Amino acid sequence: MNYIHLVALLAVLQLFLFGILVGRARAKYGVKAPAVNGNENFERAFRVQMNTLEQLVAFLPALFIAGQYWSKALVAAIGLIYLIGRFVYWRSYLADPSKRKTGFLLTVIPTFILLASGLIGALIHH
Amino acid sequence: MNYIHLVALLAVLQLFLFGILVGRARAKYGVKAPAVNGNENFERAFRVQMNTLEQLVAFLPALFIAGQYWSKALVAAIGLIYLIGRFVYWRSYLADPSKRKTGFLLTVIPTFILLASGLIGALIHH
Amino acid sequence: MNYIHLVALLAVLQLFLFGILVGRARAKYGVKAPAVNGNENFERAFRVQMNTLEQLVAFLPALFIAGQYWSKALVAAIGLIYLIGRFVYWRSYLADPSKRKTGFLLTVIPTFILLASGLIGALIHH
Repeated sequence: MNYIHLVALLAVLQLFLFGILVGRARAKYGVKAPAVNGNENFERAFRVQMNTLEQLVAFLPALFIAGQYWSKALVAAIGLIYLIGRFVYWRSYLADPSKRKTGFLLTVIPTFILLASGLIGALIHH
Repeated sequence: MNYIHLVALLAVLQLFLFGILVGRARAKYGVKAPAVNGNENFERAFRVQMNTLEQLVAFLPALFIAGQYWSKALVAAIGLIYLIGRFVYWRSYLADPSKRKTGFLLTVIPTFILLASGLIGALIHH
Repeated sequence: MNYIHLVALLAVLQLFLFGILVGRARAKYGVKAPAVNGNENFERAFRVQMNTLEQLVAFLPALFIAGQYWSKALVAAIGLIYLIGRFVYWRSYLADPSKRKTGFLLTVIPTFILLASGLIGALIHH
């Protein structure tokens, strides 16, 4: 099994899932495209998707690059924390946006560790 | 020729193109930065770009990973459907956002096939 | 040192930095999640982050693919211009959105050169 690829694709599927939930929120709360405001519950679902997009663009390169220098199993395990953190973020943001911090940190910290590991790897590589 | 790289770069160029069209819509409909609302036609162009951004972040890793396990020509051919689907999406969204579904599915289904192929590849890899 | 990886990770860190600045602007200007409008200064910081996200999604694949066909040091040097251009973009957008053009071009042109180099590389590859 290629753990790095598995985690990367699961993170992409997670973004897809959040996108589907935005589509459903659009229908449920009557927010017609191209509008993205007008209903607080829709906006919460939409912001979860957009924030996940931002995080994923940082997470994927960090995951791949860190995986080229360090133990792939360890790198993938750190990536798993990101995946769980995103689910926590989603649940807490939908319940109450002011409580999104824990899930946010559970995503940002793993990504940051991967970024730092990748940077060290790239610097000492010869 | 590296078909995977070609399709990947064409998909990136397509996002660039949609971004240029947003810039032109900004000028044409008098929507001054940082605003992203206020004119329905501008909002349509903007949502096409944003949705393409979301799709591309899923498409590119799926394309690259699937291409490492399966026939590169076949994977690139599926990627071509994504490219065409995005153009269909763009044209139909600008004409009438409620008709965006066909183009949307023509993007999402190829990406989903690549995601599934990549997942299977990563799982059976040893 | 792997220059391509270094530039890629620095570009990701830059997106992170802009994200942190959006979080601070949220607090400073009293824009509560999930809202992303209502204060011009917040909207500027937010648009810098979103535009950087769009650019990064184009820049990273272009950087990686160009780096597989051409001198990695040269490709990374072009990437450095992107990094500097994004900082110029950020500073000028926050000061006055109508002055964002120089920084914008300093990002778009390097990315475009990398895209074109990657396309040529992928086409002549055998």
